[in-house]
Amino acid sequence: MDIISIIKKKCQKEELTKDEMTFFIKCIVNGSIDQCQIGAMLMTLYLNDMTNIEVSNMTMAMANSGKILDFKSSSFVVDKHSTGGVGDKVSIPLVPALRATEEDFVIPMVSGRGLGFTGGTLDKLESIPGFSAFSFDYKQLFNIGNEFGCFIVGSDDLSPADSILYRARDVTATVDNSGLIIASIISKKAAAGIKYLVLDIKIGSASFFHSVDEAKTFGKQFVLVAKLMGIECRALMTRMSAPIGNYVGNSLEILESVNCLKGEGPRDLQNLVELIGGHLLHMTHKVNTVEEGRKRIAESLNNGTALEKFKQMLIKQNIDEMIADGICYGRTIAILPMAKHETKIKSQSSGYVKKINGMIIAEICNKLGAGRQFSNQQIDPAVGVQLLVKIGDYIKNDTQCIILYHNEIDLDKSFLISLQNSIELTDKVVQPENILLGIIDCNS
Amino acid sequence: MDIISIIKKKCQKEELTKDEMTFFIKCIVNGSIDQCQIGAMLMTLYLNDMTNIEVSNMTMAMANSGKILDFKSSSFVVDKHSTGGVGDKVSIPLVPALRATEEDFVIPMVSGRGLGFTGGTLDKLESIPGFSAFSFDYKQLFNIGNEFGCFIVGSDDLSPADSILYRARDVTATVDNSGLIIASIISKKAAAGIKYLVLDIKIGSASFFHSVDEAKTFGKQFVLVAKLMGIECRALMTRMSAPIGNYVGNSLEILESVNCLKGEGPRDLQNLVELIGGHLLHMTHKVNTVEEGRKRIAESLNNGTALEKFKQMLIKQNIDEMIADGICYGRTIAILPMAKHETKIKSQSSGYVKKINGMIIAEICNKLGAGRQFSNQQIDPAVGVQLLVKIGDYIKNDTQCIILYHNEIDLDKSFLISLQNSIELTDKVVQPENILLGIIDCNS
Repeated sequence: MDIISIIKKKCQKEELTKDEMTFFIKCIVNGSIDQCQIGAMLMTLYLNDMTNIEVSNMTMAMANSGKILDFKSSSFVVDKHSTGGVGDKVSIPLVPALRATEEDFVIPMVSGRGLGFTGGTLDKLESIPGFSAFSFDYKQLFNIGNEFGCFIVGSDDLSPADSILYRARDVTATVDNSGLIIASIISKKAAAGIKYLVLDIKIGSASFFHSVDEAKTFGKQFVLVAKLMGIECRALMTRMSAPIGNYVGNSLEILESVNCLKGEGPRDLQNLVELIGGHLLHMTHKVNTVEEGRKRIAESLNNGTALEKFKQMLIKQNIDEMIADGICYGRTIAILPMAKHETKIKSQSSGYVKKINGMIIAEICNKLGAGRQFSNQQIDPAVGVQLLVKIGDYIKNDTQCIILYHNEIDLDKSFLISLQNSIELTDKVVQPENILLGIIDCNS
Repeated sequence: MDIISIIKKKCQKEELTKDEMTFFIKCIVNGSIDQCQIGAMLMTLYLNDMTNIEVSNMTMAMANSGKILDFKSSSFVVDKHSTGGVGDKVSIPLVPALRATEEDFVIPMVSGRGLGFTGGTLDKLESIPGFSAFSFDYKQLFNIGNEFGCFIVGSDDLSPADSILYRARDVTATVDNSGLIIASIISKKAAAGIKYLVLDIKIGSASFFHSVDEAKTFGKQFVLVAKLMGIECRALMTRMSAPIGNYVGNSLEILESVNCLKGEGPRDLQNLVELIGGHLLHMTHKVNTVEEGRKRIAESLNNGTALEKFKQMLIKQNIDEMIADGICYGRTIAILPMAKHETKIKSQSSGYVKKINGMIIAEICNKLGAGRQFSNQQIDPAVGVQLLVKIGDYIKNDTQCIILYHNEIDLDKSFLISLQNSIELTDKVVQPENILLGIIDCNS
């Protein structure tokens, strides 16, 4: 078996066998493949697409390319994944809330750094002084999971093939392919020992998916591959007409996550946390209805148990106890890095807020330094945007609607105009819409 | 401008601009591109194909990626290229024959090593003791060309981007794409200062092209791109129903080339040398008809001037004078490496020889060590095959028809059976066929 023949076969649109896919992944991890072969193989998988069988075989090979966390059998190993949305900080309050709700849940979240636009979950957490995402080996993760019950980290011990391919996809313009995305996500989840998974598929102009149909195709393939890997998965298709919550930016989103953990977060963020948590409780038969699950998650936010679990998790993840305590119970903004300057942006006309264009906001946050333009780039944890209005609000002309937090004193004028334009107004009353557009599970 | 955006654009089947193509080639040569990006870019150019404009821009950028040989303006800088056929040694007698015929020709042939099956022109020449293909820098090549008038070498000074891409294409299964092939060939030719070029497009089951239609499409694109690069090109489509000449194998093909330079070569080989040489003399207006040109080439083979020029060329290319003399005027086989063993293969039935399957012969030569299975592999110059029969011959059952030259005493039995099967017999008389199937020039 050789790589050139495997690439050639896929070029000719023939389906690769399990052995061929396994060989490819093995060569990546043992370094016997040429880098330009990785690029060529990714591009042929990207342009010719993988069949479900190929995706499953690739996922399996990637999951087996490193260590696998095998938690004690009495526990329910659960997790969530989002296809990504501007301001999506759901994982940060959800992970401790889940564990606070169910003692026999393990939530071993292995997350990634952000590449496009704004930071990822790990970037957000790294705005907490002392947080270091990649500082645990798989044995330590196994112990934290078994004894403490949850963590949010990065790991190259789990599915190391994914770490290599993720980086290669990033530089070869092969990121947005459903097969490659699915193999990447599920291989990491399988290696982390996940048995129950909720996938949050974001739908909207600032999301990867723009229509329910596209999202459904992706969701079905995802749920199927997860099932083949022994993971029960439910995919929720959720509408995104605006960024999630009121803040976009790393420190700012930690601040908002803490508010959420206090039961004081914005309604849309808490709604998503409850919804995803509710489904996980329902899937594991801890509750009879999703609604019942939602209530239990809400309880953990309102009664302080989720916040306390978050504090303990930070301490387990090597954050100084004083800092963890200050973040959760003290003056959070005195501990987190905050930007030097703020600029307020006013509306130019009046009307009901119909949409807030997350893509524009994300691009400006990226230009301010909140995200990366190339991998390994240092990001600025402090900068970002605060939205003062929500969908459905009526605003008058000249109302303050956005605050921009920045460290450079000179601000590009075009940023302000773009941000003004990010808020779409209408004359008519905007009716509240249900964010849940559909559910896909293994019976779909 | 950045590589990721360029790859993405081509992924989406948009045409790349001249600036984008030039940027890509520049990054290859200055090393600022990631190897996996080279692989991904090659694969997207391969699967989505290049337009003629893209091929021209790529060729131009590659030609300009290194040094360019700019010979004195009074000279006619001519060359030929073949798409490759089993036993194709035409360049070796043709280059000195052309220069022997026309004093103001410069034939600066920059050739390559073989990858598929049997060796390339340089591998064949390297069976001459002391021949080292890559030992001249561009200044030395310029001087040899200007003063002596011809050479056959390898060079990474000319179109270095091609050297890098050629190797990358080899390991990424992106060899057989017309745009990439054309850019590779013409960039090297343009960098060598070529102004008149004959392309020999081989058509047959053992060739890259299996039909006149395919060959015509390729030839038209080739001639067009050459024209855009300031090269007048004529493409000859030639039939290949059997290997060229009677020998396949590196030393053996040098022996046959020397025979040809003495006017004693096999008819089909001499025919091709005359045909291509005749066209080059016609294109440069040295003669009024191709036929007249053919005669002048034949003369140079018959009167010894081509052979003497070959000897002088070897000496210019650092071959010891005694050896060059011995190769040309002495006992050639006493100087060239010869195999230890020979095995004769007899026919199993009787009939007229209709076809000799070059692919089978090439594969067996490859397995004996005459070609490479991976790049940088050492090849065995001595091994090969001698054909004792030609198309149209009538042979009886049990007639010796092939001699296999080998160094290992134990020979795989399957080789003998395959070789027997490589000769296709028929009951009917086989009429001689014209090998020239068509001509494409810039007026086509």
